[in-house]
Amino acid sequence: MYEGIVQDLIDELGRLPGVGPKSAQRIAFHVLQADPADVRRLASVLTEVKDKVRFCVVCGNVAEEEQCRICRDPRRDPTVLCVVEESKDVVAVERTREFRGRYHVLGGAISPIEGIGPDQLRIKELLQRLSDGQITEIILATDPNLEGEATATYLTRLLKDLGLRLTRLASGLPVGGDLEYADEVTLGRAFEGRRSVDD
Amino acid sequence: MYEGIVQDLIDELGRLPGVGPKSAQRIAFHVLQADPADVRRLASVLTEVKDKVRFCVVCGNVAEEEQCRICRDPRRDPTVLCVVEESKDVVAVERTREFRGRYHVLGGAISPIEGIGPDQLRIKELLQRLSDGQITEIILATDPNLEGEATATYLTRLLKDLGLRLTRLASGLPVGGDLEYADEVTLGRAFEGRRSVDD
Repeated sequence: MYEGIVQDLIDELGRLPGVGPKSAQRIAFHVLQADPADVRRLASVLTEVKDKVRFCVVCGNVAEEEQCRICRDPRRDPTVLCVVEESKDVVAVERTREFRGRYHVLGGAISPIEGIGPDQLRIKELLQRLSDGQITEIILATDPNLEGEATATYLTRLLKDLGLRLTRLASGLPVGGDLEYADEVTLGRAFEGRRSVDD
Repeated sequence: MYEGIVQDLIDELGRLPGVGPKSAQRIAFHVLQADPADVRRLASVLTEVKDKVRFCVVCGNVAEEEQCRICRDPRRDPTVLCVVEESKDVVAVERTREFRGRYHVLGGAISPIEGIGPDQLRIKELLQRLSDGQITEIILATDPNLEGEATATYLTRLLKDLGLRLTRLASGLPVGGDLEYADEVTLGRAFEGRRSVDD
């Protein structure tokens, strides 16, 4: 409908998650009228983020150096590991200020429908981290939905004979939802009330 | 909450219209996991659009050349002019396929609250286009809301003694809404039933 490049921009914006055709058009016209410096800043941060951001070699969280901020922090308790699906879940847990241990980011959850099995997740790396015996508790903080529960069940079976304390976040999280959308208080309560799954 | 550049990206995305903090985070993580070529394409189209797109010297619509596609098209009726607020309204009217005349894009609507008066709109340019006497009908297609009605009233007073047919889009448009969100049929009906405002 629009001339060449404007339509190209609308198309590209429309590929972003949660941006429908009307939003894409609205954003495109905002861009057309915006200060060129603002638009250049957005464009450069988009390319920069792809160049600079990598994934922490230890935990799989997003990082700008070889290790992420949390893995580099010597004050974090190295004996407790919180296993989450995505980097945004790390941020959600950090916001509660309830947890002072370390993380392991799986990179997703088991989902036969999307063809994601245990081999596509960072489970081998998790087992490697457990091999030196420093970690004594693992908190399974996957999403309280079908895929997250399947992943937690899989990990429980895998880890329950290693002599670790193995816990799952307490109920309090709304079932069927995403961990990243829980409010701080609910998620904090869920941490406090975490329960054993291996007994 | 995130490390440097990831937070920068979330902040920049959050400045776009209709993108809240959660959407910005979701888009940022999509970008982190997306194909680098896709992200580069979005970044380059963002800067390109600011370099290439200008506004048609005749009607004020977005254009990649000196004149927009519609002003360059010799098949469009040069005697009927449809006055709209924004370029996206041109697209909305074009979708109805009811109108074969030309456009004039005001660049907004009169809004005392936002400090936009007639001088901030392309009204001088509109009067200039009328000076050669070729245009015989003007359709006032501003939004059916407070600012759009104020603009239409202002233009009616300004133009009613020039001996033109002066019309306003018919009712059928939902009052209080934005022209760009009207569906094709409703907007088409509004074109068919346009009424004189100067008698």
